[in-house]
Amino acid sequence: MSLKLTVSVDAMGGDAGPSVVVSALVRAVRRHPNVHFMLHGDETELTRLVAKRRSKLSQHVSIRHAPRVVRMEDKPSIALRRGRDTSMWRAIEAVKNGEAQVAVSAGNTGALMAMSMYHLGVLEGISRPAIACLMPTKIGPCVFLDVGANVECKADQLVDFAIMGEAFARAVQGIERPTVGILNVGEEEVKGNSEVKEAAHVLRNAKLPMEFCGFVEGNDITEHTVDVVVTDGFTGNVAIKTAEGTAKLIAAYMRGALKRSFMSRLGAVFASGALNALRHKLNPRASNGGIFLGLDGIVVKSHGGTDAFGFSAAIDMAIDMAAGDIVKKIAADRAEMNLPGREAAAS
Amino acid sequence: MSLKLTVSVDAMGGDAGPSVVVSALVRAVRRHPNVHFMLHGDETELTRLVAKRRSKLSQHVSIRHAPRVVRMEDKPSIALRRGRDTSMWRAIEAVKNGEAQVAVSAGNTGALMAMSMYHLGVLEGISRPAIACLMPTKIGPCVFLDVGANVECKADQLVDFAIMGEAFARAVQGIERPTVGILNVGEEEVKGNSEVKEAAHVLRNAKLPMEFCGFVEGNDITEHTVDVVVTDGFTGNVAIKTAEGTAKLIAAYMRGALKRSFMSRLGAVFASGALNALRHKLNPRASNGGIFLGLDGIVVKSHGGTDAFGFSAAIDMAIDMAAGDIVKKIAADRAEMNLPGREAAAS
Repeated sequence: MSLKLTVSVDAMGGDAGPSVVVSALVRAVRRHPNVHFMLHGDETELTRLVAKRRSKLSQHVSIRHAPRVVRMEDKPSIALRRGRDTSMWRAIEAVKNGEAQVAVSAGNTGALMAMSMYHLGVLEGISRPAIACLMPTKIGPCVFLDVGANVECKADQLVDFAIMGEAFARAVQGIERPTVGILNVGEEEVKGNSEVKEAAHVLRNAKLPMEFCGFVEGNDITEHTVDVVVTDGFTGNVAIKTAEGTAKLIAAYMRGALKRSFMSRLGAVFASGALNALRHKLNPRASNGGIFLGLDGIVVKSHGGTDAFGFSAAIDMAIDMAAGDIVKKIAADRAEMNLPGREAAAS
Repeated sequence: MSLKLTVSVDAMGGDAGPSVVVSALVRAVRRHPNVHFMLHGDETELTRLVAKRRSKLSQHVSIRHAPRVVRMEDKPSIALRRGRDTSMWRAIEAVKNGEAQVAVSAGNTGALMAMSMYHLGVLEGISRPAIACLMPTKIGPCVFLDVGANVECKADQLVDFAIMGEAFARAVQGIERPTVGILNVGEEEVKGNSEVKEAAHVLRNAKLPMEFCGFVEGNDITEHTVDVVVTDGFTGNVAIKTAEGTAKLIAAYMRGALKRSFMSRLGAVFASGALNALRHKLNPRASNGGIFLGLDGIVVKSHGGTDAFGFSAAIDMAIDMAAGDIVKKIAADRAEMNLPGREAAAS
């Protein structure tokens, strides 16, 4: 589906530089011919890169000069204080000003979150935003949050994450009544720390457009036991990086195993189609967007080390979030939770 | 290496029952001809199972009757209160009485830890025991702890885990000066919660037979960035189960990919040797022992759903721990940390 909207792009973020972003735009323009893209960054370089693709990009792209770049090693607080003329700042500012509806950046995650909070603000009733990601499973992606925005989480925040996750699953994935679980060390009600127990208690009694399934374990993420898995940002961050490391290790084992003998090398040639399809499926680039939820606006973080394919997937995600009206859905569900009548009825 | 020691085995624990344990013993007896095995469980059934293998097992095995079994769903507190005549209780009691030097069980982890603490006690200076596991990496296993014994950990406990982990790496893996890292959401000193920061501060100033490398991230486990990775039991449990789920998902993808076409099926036939070797490498049974550290004695938990190969690997681990004098090494390093002179010098 294509919408009449403008995507604001930090063209200088990420390790690979603006040429990757412009390559991603060629792909994005093909998929979303009615969307306008606003590029923020070095005007001279961006003009040159876009000119190369002139015939494909000219009507869809505008360039806004930003003289500076947030570096990957900059602290969020410093980036926020001194970042006014960076491409990242300007990209988010365009959403705040209403010139664009969504922002995408492959830059420094901490700085992007800090600037997003500063410009767009946090939704009413949400204590702090979270970062969600889509984990691959046998039956399509599972929404997993928080993966790093909040290293220490109270029960209230876990409840917020559940609301944001189910709203995302409904708005973007089209699941009418998403199933939601809280990550824990066992499925039994008695297990876990006090925060997960309290959050589970609140969600069990909440009347939200979701089905709360209690606790799930680490292996339930890839099993797709539930549509949305909720955890604190410390555990979530460790979990996605452990999964990434495991996938990388297995890929290395596989390469090694298939090179072992003449027969295995021959087998690899015959099965090359299948093995390439497998590599594609394991490719973290395809669903590598860090989705910022809980802001009064839409911001998607593309993986810093990504290529054009990955960056265009992050753009797709941002456009889908705008189309699904994710921000309004989260706000409505959060407000629903706070109805005084309901609180009284539950107690 | 073979030692003159006795291994006390809970023959009734685990989903698969005593026949798997007895099959594992055939393998263990071959590898450790000088070790004696004391089996606890249903005497009639065990006698029958051992008789089947009489020629191989008779001189190496003794059977002790225990009328009851701890069930997988029993709460640790209940198992502890009512478990005196279970095979698990008796298996650990034999270590306490000095009849055996190590105990192995595939039963209920929580109950096994509770009974181990009750019978063997916790080492002086250690606040609570932890469960370590060996994570597969490109260059041999990485020691990872805690994977579930302590869902909420203070900085002191993380320091204890570092001591137990390095002692294990030295005593069992033969690494002279193991490298140790604390799991965190980033490598920078400013990141993470207050517990990991405080633990890192203590370990940076500690004079232990290890090299403390600061913070590591989830993907560093399989990269083997350090020999020992320390974390709280909540995060560790989620991480190993996420890794397990990821490996399972990839194996399913691989099976699917290789069945896709005639060519890929043909390729799989040619590469079957390599693919089987790969499956073996990804096999969680090979290193599935949960290693209890911090007790005044040696207890190894074999995976509940394991087969004879997995159970015999857990027996190997227990014997290696006895041979390496792991308990004394932990006690010595913990005592070293508490030297009043050192405390004064560090402050």
